[in-house]
Amino acid sequence: MNDDKSDTLPGLPTLADVAERANVSTATVSRCLNSPDRVVEATRERVLKAVQELGYSPNFGARALAARRTGTVGAIIPTMENAIFARAMQAFQEELRDNGLTLLVASSAYRPQVEDEQIHALVARGADALLLIGHDRSEALYQFLERRGVPVLAAWVHDADNPRPSIGFDNRKAMRMLAEEVIRAGHRDLAMISADINGNDRARERVAGLREAMAARGLDAEALPLIQTRYSIEHGRQAFAKLMRRVPRPTAVICGNDVLAVGALQMAREMGLHVPGDVSITGFDDIEIATLVEPPLTTVHVPHRAMGRQAAQMLIEALRSGVPVAESVELQTDLRLRGTLGPPPA
Amino acid sequence: MNDDKSDTLPGLPTLADVAERANVSTATVSRCLNSPDRVVEATRERVLKAVQELGYSPNFGARALAARRTGTVGAIIPTMENAIFARAMQAFQEELRDNGLTLLVASSAYRPQVEDEQIHALVARGADALLLIGHDRSEALYQFLERRGVPVLAAWVHDADNPRPSIGFDNRKAMRMLAEEVIRAGHRDLAMISADINGNDRARERVAGLREAMAARGLDAEALPLIQTRYSIEHGRQAFAKLMRRVPRPTAVICGNDVLAVGALQMAREMGLHVPGDVSITGFDDIEIATLVEPPLTTVHVPHRAMGRQAAQMLIEALRSGVPVAESVELQTDLRLRGTLGPPPA
Repeated sequence: MNDDKSDTLPGLPTLADVAERANVSTATVSRCLNSPDRVVEATRERVLKAVQELGYSPNFGARALAARRTGTVGAIIPTMENAIFARAMQAFQEELRDNGLTLLVASSAYRPQVEDEQIHALVARGADALLLIGHDRSEALYQFLERRGVPVLAAWVHDADNPRPSIGFDNRKAMRMLAEEVIRAGHRDLAMISADINGNDRARERVAGLREAMAARGLDAEALPLIQTRYSIEHGRQAFAKLMRRVPRPTAVICGNDVLAVGALQMAREMGLHVPGDVSITGFDDIEIATLVEPPLTTVHVPHRAMGRQAAQMLIEALRSGVPVAESVELQTDLRLRGTLGPPPA
Repeated sequence: MNDDKSDTLPGLPTLADVAERANVSTATVSRCLNSPDRVVEATRERVLKAVQELGYSPNFGARALAARRTGTVGAIIPTMENAIFARAMQAFQEELRDNGLTLLVASSAYRPQVEDEQIHALVARGADALLLIGHDRSEALYQFLERRGVPVLAAWVHDADNPRPSIGFDNRKAMRMLAEEVIRAGHRDLAMISADINGNDRARERVAGLREAMAARGLDAEALPLIQTRYSIEHGRQAFAKLMRRVPRPTAVICGNDVLAVGALQMAREMGLHVPGDVSITGFDDIEIATLVEPPLTTVHVPHRAMGRQAAQMLIEALRSGVPVAESVELQTDLRLRGTLGPPPA
């Protein structure tokens, strides 16, 4: 256990601390943890008492990881209700299963407190590794996972400035590219429907990307009408109706994802507005519904399957090697220009 | 733990057996099972290993159930990829959470072997109760869950002849009602696209319901063209194209769910067929995509949210009382007659 990283992190109890408190050698502590049968009971109890009192966690390092392996990987996604995360999770699970691992999924309803509870529940239930969505969570949670030696990977994001490992794409850049296309089509009165940007770095970055594109073309990014709401078709409908009552009426409504965009499209039809003749609408994700609606959605294509598969590979490698995921992987998105984007009305 | 029933039943391993095998006192075993947080990990693992190897089950009786409570409920659904199970799972989770329970979900890809592994994984990870889809699984699995004292409930089915508890609806009756409507509209050349009926009682019952309706109206139910395929839009497309090459061409294609029906609808458009003028198409489930497509789908409305919420209530009651779920609850479905069903071409 001498390669145990937790022995080298400042502030955390070390093997030596345990040995000192139990008044035994570090070798005895190590033996207690690895082969308790080879230690007499009185000593073992003294060592385990010290381990408990100090909160010592022997979980880093390949050997410890291999020893506590349960064959279960956890994922916490913000919602199961619409299909945003479904395809990536399916690919994630298939890859895990091909490697003999079982996936357990929890969904947090976009609530940090719920995610916190679920992380603890999954770790307590013996998850070997965790996939989480985005980077937005407390430092304390990351420290908890480090102490428990649970490799963790964030998906759906790529942020070069964030040192934590991730597999995903640059949400800001992707939305900026889409917004540039909308502005190039002639639109000046833009509006956005987004998820709540608090605690959701993907949503926040997409709003920032739209604002960057506006500023770069001399539009007033701060004046952007922005409605933050829940990701659902119904919420997309309501937000769109509200935006259409603005003066001047926006000629293009940029939606934070396809679910909101499909709601906006439905409401446009009900209001007798032609898309894209009267108003353009764009989505984000390119999930199945994007091409089921008429006209099909202009949106950002996210490589869901590749993201899920590679996420699994990265966590499996961390479990095999005993080394936490260190590198981040950036995937590319691309625009799908379909029927809901056109020039603004004359 | 002396009132623990498993200690008194002949032939079953006792607490003392576990203690002996794990080389600890019976008090330690009891503590491991009742307050695992108060036992160091190495000891806990040794005890749990002995529990597992001996098949010791401290789980019967209300007090034992309450004692081993982990606050986690498991659900195994056939797929996460399309939205069939999403809404019910969301409602299931909300209700659990309102009662302080965490939901962990696994998806079996419609493969019995995978479901078997996941049931064992969830029970090993401490799931207090399990929600499963349909009744089709081995007797051995049910016996395993009984031995472990894990309350189990099947959703999506109601079969008065099956003694196992369920919350759901009569798939056969629901499809028969829809098929009667199709036949009443004048169709005689029917065809069906279904999921694989092996290991999927919902699919099997829906096929049976269509055949019952045909037989009741003097149509040759055995001659029904039936394609069994995977639940995906793409598979629905392919199956529909194949059916349209038959002579005589079916005038109505009954789909086992909305996902298949949406694929059929897309393919009809690509083939230049008017729906419902040239061919009628029906779905099952009434998930969100049913009303996103044009024309909107005629389908069977399933009360997904009510099913999810009540499933949670039934399992919570079983955990509270220590009595396994005994009653089955039948929910009603109803027809949603929309644009994809019309009379056959003249």
